[in-house]
Amino acid sequence: MTKKILNSPAACPSQMLDGFLAAHGGTCERVPGVSGLRVRQVRDKVALVIGGGSGHEPMFTFFVGDGLADAAAAGNVFASPDPNTIVQTARAVDAGKGVLFVYGNYSGDNLNFDIAAEMLEEMGVPTRTVRVWDDVASAPAQRIKDRRGIAGDLFVIKIAGAATAAGLSLDEAWRVAAKARDGVFSIGVGLAGAAIPGESEPIFTLPEGEIEFGLGIHGEPGIRRMPLPGADELTDLLVDTLFAETGVSAGDRVCTCVNGLGSTTLMELYIMNRRLRQRLDCAGVEIHDMQVGSYVTSQEMAGASISLLRLDGELAGYFDRPCSSPHYRR
Amino acid sequence: MTKKILNSPAACPSQMLDGFLAAHGGTCERVPGVSGLRVRQVRDKVALVIGGGSGHEPMFTFFVGDGLADAAAAGNVFASPDPNTIVQTARAVDAGKGVLFVYGNYSGDNLNFDIAAEMLEEMGVPTRTVRVWDDVASAPAQRIKDRRGIAGDLFVIKIAGAATAAGLSLDEAWRVAAKARDGVFSIGVGLAGAAIPGESEPIFTLPEGEIEFGLGIHGEPGIRRMPLPGADELTDLLVDTLFAETGVSAGDRVCTCVNGLGSTTLMELYIMNRRLRQRLDCAGVEIHDMQVGSYVTSQEMAGASISLLRLDGELAGYFDRPCSSPHYRR
Repeated sequence: MTKKILNSPAACPSQMLDGFLAAHGGTCERVPGVSGLRVRQVRDKVALVIGGGSGHEPMFTFFVGDGLADAAAAGNVFASPDPNTIVQTARAVDAGKGVLFVYGNYSGDNLNFDIAAEMLEEMGVPTRTVRVWDDVASAPAQRIKDRRGIAGDLFVIKIAGAATAAGLSLDEAWRVAAKARDGVFSIGVGLAGAAIPGESEPIFTLPEGEIEFGLGIHGEPGIRRMPLPGADELTDLLVDTLFAETGVSAGDRVCTCVNGLGSTTLMELYIMNRRLRQRLDCAGVEIHDMQVGSYVTSQEMAGASISLLRLDGELAGYFDRPCSSPHYRR
Repeated sequence: MTKKILNSPAACPSQMLDGFLAAHGGTCERVPGVSGLRVRQVRDKVALVIGGGSGHEPMFTFFVGDGLADAAAAGNVFASPDPNTIVQTARAVDAGKGVLFVYGNYSGDNLNFDIAAEMLEEMGVPTRTVRVWDDVASAPAQRIKDRRGIAGDLFVIKIAGAATAAGLSLDEAWRVAAKARDGVFSIGVGLAGAAIPGESEPIFTLPEGEIEFGLGIHGEPGIRRMPLPGADELTDLLVDTLFAETGVSAGDRVCTCVNGLGSTTLMELYIMNRRLRQRLDCAGVEIHDMQVGSYVTSQEMAGASISLLRLDGELAGYFDRPCSSPHYRR
């Protein structure tokens, strides 16, 4: 049975926000009455509003900050925030220049954010939406809009945050964020499942010594199960998939992220990053930036993903702008 | 059996360093010939050199950076670096103003760093040493020098980094770092053990539903085993222990750290931080800063610790100086 430090499963998202604000209340505050977090000072810019289910921390809620999101709407663990939460969260940071939504492409989020967008439009608040669908394992390229969002959220939010901070209009910020979304591709591997708070058993289990290739961040099935290979071989499998998918080749410029899903150590992630670097160098791909850490987690799931963001000069310019939140600063 | 992403157990620390430098080689580099990491530019100041066993990442190696350590000597997983590694690592950043060593109080580290200090003195490099012994569970107050170092390393290294960056002499930087060490107290709890790379089984196991109070970061035995209580009750047990140990009371000023040991989620850590804040507010203790994250880990161990640092004006001044490394920036 999985042991967790909590008071009651239902209270987890709210008490987590309380604990976050206990530490970081100088710059952030709660959106009154709903499960949302916002920057204290509304900024005279397009508002970037993100969100999704809780349980993936630091994504989404803890990506509120300078050069990042203005606010985040937080659902229960692995469940979309409801439309009212999204509306109130967006209104709390709307400066009259419109709201850009960025979130992962899941049916519950799509539905609730779309309803919220309609409600906001009726209130006279223009919105644009970018859904992140970076998980190449979740659908073929021909059905890219069926793909799920995983660690690629990081890049799209970073660049959308920079674009809105730079003063772009809603349409222009949307264009830049959508370009980032179209340039990011990820694939993950699961080694062991995690439990939702209140559940005694993990959401999936794997046979002894096996891993699941292409697993989603809520335990959605991947492409295949296989014995755990060595780190270099595993990284090669992920990189080969991404190379084939993206067509990235010599002279292209990329940002990368080796993302831990929860309990996989920095040691393991950096061992993967070593191989990722070898592969990119060998292929003549220009590396703009490499990130390694647990940014988009699935509770204490064991596993990792690799994301590639293909950059042009415009995206690189936005990527390089500084940003700051308690768990992500560049 | 625990699954890990690695190539060979023996290669883990070195390949991790390679992967780290693949991402962050712009500011750091390897110390030639040994398992050490250093800043690229030797700074005209007392050199702060830290170190210890690998496997606690981001501590120690990834605390090399601006306003932090100048270099770190890395041992194998849960094993001290050898004296030669420490000597070479220290010489690589010695600017002629001496070397301040900060590390956790373990017999292997004490022995090897002391031998290294003697070797350096013979080479004409003056050294001073601060051993961190913040774990109140590991020995009674009367034998404080028998206590182990756990997450309190974070505070002592942060303040020692600031003190050396401010240009203090070796003796003065040592005095400030020792004052920080004397002001920091921690206690942890383990929920589930972790495996060392190459081992199929965790280094300890606990009965179903039980936790170990006062557990060390290498799985050293704690004070007692008990059923897992709710998060508030657990936090109260830790806080009560720290209050009794430190005598912190109304009007005192503290920094706090809720530190995850590996696989415990940010959600759980912030739920603990919520209660910690309530308790400190209730006691009238002034909170200078709260940190929450997995800074000193024990592979994928489940559990957490709370550290309190009692501040005076001098320590607060150093604590507030900015610092920056890829996994720790303030």
